[in-house]
Amino acid sequence: MYFEKSSRSKLNRHPERGSFDKETIYKIIDEVLYCHVSFLQDDKPFVIPTIHARMDDSIILHGAIASRMLKHILAGNEVCIAITLMDGLVLARSVFHHSMNYRSVVIFGKGEVLMEKEAKLNALHAITDHILPGRWEDARQPNEKELNSTTVVSIKIEEASAKIRTGPPKDDDEDYDLPVWAGVIPFIPMLSEPVRDPDQNENILLPDYIKKMLK
Amino acid sequence: MYFEKSSRSKLNRHPERGSFDKETIYKIIDEVLYCHVSFLQDDKPFVIPTIHARMDDSIILHGAIASRMLKHILAGNEVCIAITLMDGLVLARSVFHHSMNYRSVVIFGKGEVLMEKEAKLNALHAITDHILPGRWEDARQPNEKELNSTTVVSIKIEEASAKIRTGPPKDDDEDYDLPVWAGVIPFIPMLSEPVRDPDQNENILLPDYIKKMLK
Repeated sequence: MYFEKSSRSKLNRHPERGSFDKETIYKIIDEVLYCHVSFLQDDKPFVIPTIHARMDDSIILHGAIASRMLKHILAGNEVCIAITLMDGLVLARSVFHHSMNYRSVVIFGKGEVLMEKEAKLNALHAITDHILPGRWEDARQPNEKELNSTTVVSIKIEEASAKIRTGPPKDDDEDYDLPVWAGVIPFIPMLSEPVRDPDQNENILLPDYIKKMLK
Repeated sequence: MYFEKSSRSKLNRHPERGSFDKETIYKIIDEVLYCHVSFLQDDKPFVIPTIHARMDDSIILHGAIASRMLKHILAGNEVCIAITLMDGLVLARSVFHHSMNYRSVVIFGKGEVLMEKEAKLNALHAITDHILPGRWEDARQPNEKELNSTTVVSIKIEEASAKIRTGPPKDDDEDYDLPVWAGVIPFIPMLSEPVRDPDQNENILLPDYIKKMLK
């Protein structure tokens, strides 16, 4: 399944790095814990980081009703969402061919506010378990008051494309013999040893779903 | 030194997490290797990831002249730039109080194209050494043709604010005795073992400035 290539979702630069394949795009969306949402305020661009989840062909965002981002979405305006994973530094022999290895997705769509209690709870469940699978069942779930003070929007993905760079640097032919170390320095995202809330006593053991994530 | 608080750079949500302090803001800009730049295309929001550097009170971006982002900037339009560092998962006893520890900056400004050769080279030097200090002196520096095909813009920071969350979760008083593990799982960004370009022979040793970065 592919997203349609539009004049804005198509890649002008390095089109060989592009993909409109749903599976490729969704894998990146699911792997990254947060996104950058771009919207307009007073006709000017604005961008903020926020956490997300994907449910089928939609991106779930949440926040306080007063948020500027949610106001833009509630007014029926389109947002653009970037989800980016940096995988490494690409060190070429020439400065010009230096690059990064990365996997990134750009998404366009309009949001709809989830009003129904069940839909809201399902969406918050998806966001919570996107961050930490198993957490929703363990933590205290939202009560009526908390649910009412949280706006949850579902953004149907209308257009999306991925851009991916992998592998070693590519230099100009005449540069390959230069005595400059060339290659890739990979980034590895690590979760470190959990730090218990100092206000909690040691009787509560670290749950298995967290241990599993740290492996 | 502080940036002025404007209606859009001020923090509506969690103002206690906000800072307009230049030193705090610049430290985050310098620590993160890439940013998300938001601009308009056909009056709609667009956001893409790109690498940057800071020179004094300006953000340096570069790219091909054909890029949509650079076209927006060249036309004299303002951009919004987000620079984000995720530091950890904040696991509260209640789903509602789950959060992330993060350091993020949002910047507003207009760009100016660097035309003069020396200024362009200085800016590319800053971008290269932001990614890997020492690399500019080692790699082959840009030739005339490469310089001409690269657009470099300097965006003077007009408004900026930082938002920072640190520390353990904050739960509602009545939830502190719930038998739910609470605390923080920190993220540690790691550079992994360098992978040499398969097209390079082993005679070229890994330079000290790379070894230093891996420590």
